[in-house]
Amino acid sequence: MNNLPIGVFDSGLGGLTVVQAIRRVMPSEKIIYLGDSARVPYGTRSAQTVVRYARTCSGFLTTMGLKMLVVACNTASAVAMPSLQKEIDIPVLGVITAGAKAVVGGTFTNGAVSRVGVIGTAGTIQSGAYPAEIASINPDLKVFGQSAPLLVPLAEEGWIDGEVPELAAMRYLEPLVESQIETLLLGCTHYPLLSNSIKRALGRLGSNATVIDSASAMAADVNRTLQDHGLEAPPQHKRQSLNCFVTDRASSFNQVATRFLGEPIGEVEVVDIS
Amino acid sequence: MNNLPIGVFDSGLGGLTVVQAIRRVMPSEKIIYLGDSARVPYGTRSAQTVVRYARTCSGFLTTMGLKMLVVACNTASAVAMPSLQKEIDIPVLGVITAGAKAVVGGTFTNGAVSRVGVIGTAGTIQSGAYPAEIASINPDLKVFGQSAPLLVPLAEEGWIDGEVPELAAMRYLEPLVESQIETLLLGCTHYPLLSNSIKRALGRLGSNATVIDSASAMAADVNRTLQDHGLEAPPQHKRQSLNCFVTDRASSFNQVATRFLGEPIGEVEVVDIS
Repeated sequence: MNNLPIGVFDSGLGGLTVVQAIRRVMPSEKIIYLGDSARVPYGTRSAQTVVRYARTCSGFLTTMGLKMLVVACNTASAVAMPSLQKEIDIPVLGVITAGAKAVVGGTFTNGAVSRVGVIGTAGTIQSGAYPAEIASINPDLKVFGQSAPLLVPLAEEGWIDGEVPELAAMRYLEPLVESQIETLLLGCTHYPLLSNSIKRALGRLGSNATVIDSASAMAADVNRTLQDHGLEAPPQHKRQSLNCFVTDRASSFNQVATRFLGEPIGEVEVVDIS
Repeated sequence: MNNLPIGVFDSGLGGLTVVQAIRRVMPSEKIIYLGDSARVPYGTRSAQTVVRYARTCSGFLTTMGLKMLVVACNTASAVAMPSLQKEIDIPVLGVITAGAKAVVGGTFTNGAVSRVGVIGTAGTIQSGAYPAEIASINPDLKVFGQSAPLLVPLAEEGWIDGEVPELAAMRYLEPLVESQIETLLLGCTHYPLLSNSIKRALGRLGSNATVIDSASAMAADVNRTLQDHGLEAPPQHKRQSLNCFVTDRASSFNQVATRFLGEPIGEVEVVDIS
C-alpha cells in the first residue's frame, strides 16, 4: 500500500504547482497527475457539472491503484468533496481544507490571525467554501473573499512580473486591504506563479499581510495525512516518477506545464475520460 | 425559406457581438444563437477536437430549420469550415472569411492596404487561417499575426477601459506596429468590446492603423450573402426575435452576455448537445 502512488487531479495544468510542492517535500512519493484540459476551466461551470467532471477524473485515477487522492482543483474541492469522500475508500484531500488548515493553524504565519483575505476564481469565491471551511475550524476569524479571475490567464500567459500583473492584483486586492486583512490565502493553483507580483501589489497598497499559497498548504496536508495513516513511501535514493495524463493537449502545453511544474514536464499521455 | 432564422454559434458568449452587429444591420432577421459554454474555450483545444465540437453545434442548430449558418467562433472558422460546408446544404459563413474580405475589399478602410495585422487567440493565429484566407483573395498583402489571449478574459471581466487593458494591448500590438501595419483586424469575437482601448494603445505606440472588427465584418458578409441568394426576410415593423441556447450556464452569465449583446439577454435555455 505504501508504495502505491498519490493521484492528483485539476481542471487543467494549474494543479502542477501542487505536484511541484508535493515533490519538493516528499521526493520518495510516486505521483499520477490528471489535468482535465479538455474541459478546463471548471470555475465558470455550474456546481452540478463540476461534480460530474470531478467524478470522472477521480474514477480514472482510482482504477490505477492509489493510496491517496488529492483534489488540486479549488472549484472541484469547493463543491465535490462530500461526493468523492463518500464514494472512494482511500483518503481524499482537497485544496480548500488544506488552505483553511494552513490559515487557522498558522502553518505559514507567526501566530494567530483574525482577518483573512481569500482570492480565487469566481466559482470558488461564490461557493463560500473557504469561509465555511475556515469557520468550521475557528469561527472567530473574519474571512473576506474576492474573485480574481484575470490572474489565471496572466499566469498561463507567463505575464507573472511587471506592471500588468501588479496593477491587476492591486485592483483585486484593494478591497481586501481596506478590510485590513493580516493574511492573504491564494485560493487557486495558478496563483503561486504570481506570488511576487501579489506581494508587491500588497506593498503598493500599504499592506504587510502574509501570503499563503494553497499549493504549499496542500503539500503540508498531504505530508501530515500520510504520516497519520502510516502511508509514507519508504525513503528512496532518487526522486520518484511523475506520470502525467491530460484530456486534451494544446500547442502551448509544454510551455505552460513546465512553468507550473517548475521543471520540464516529460512524457504526457492524452486520454479520453468522458 | 426567407422567413427561416439564421443560426449563429460560438464556443461561448463572444459570438453575441456578431449577433449584435447582425441585428443592428438586419433587424428583420430572426436569429437562433448557440453558445457552447460547457466546452469554452475552443482556442486552446486541438484542431480535431474543435472540428468535433463545431459539428455538434451546427447539428443542433440545423435541425431547428435555418436558411443560413454563421460560424461566429474564430477557432472553429479556422479549422472546421470545409467539413461544415460539405455536410450542410445551406450557406455556411465563417468569421475568418468575412474578416479577410473586409480587409482586402477595404470595406472599412479608405482604399487599398498592403500591410495588415491580425490579433486573435493562440489557436486562431497558429492555424494561419487569416493569412491563408487573405492571400487567397489578394496574395500581395503582407499579413502579420499576433496572438493576444489575455484580451478575452479582460473583455469577459469587463475591464475594457483603463491602464490594464491598454498596457496589455500595447504589449501585444508593439511587434505589429514595428511591422508598420496600416490595418488591424480584431480576429476574435471578444475584441470589439476592447476596441477603444486597442485604438488608444495603437495611438500610444505611434500608429494610426485602421481597426476592423470581425463582428461588423461578419454582419456585412451575412447581409451581402442573403441579398446574393435572395434570402432576405421581408421587412418587419419590429425587430425580430433572438432565441438563445447555451450548453452550460455560469452564475456570471447574464452580466457577461448582456455586455456582449449590448442589451439585456432575455430568456436563455440550457441544452445538452454532447
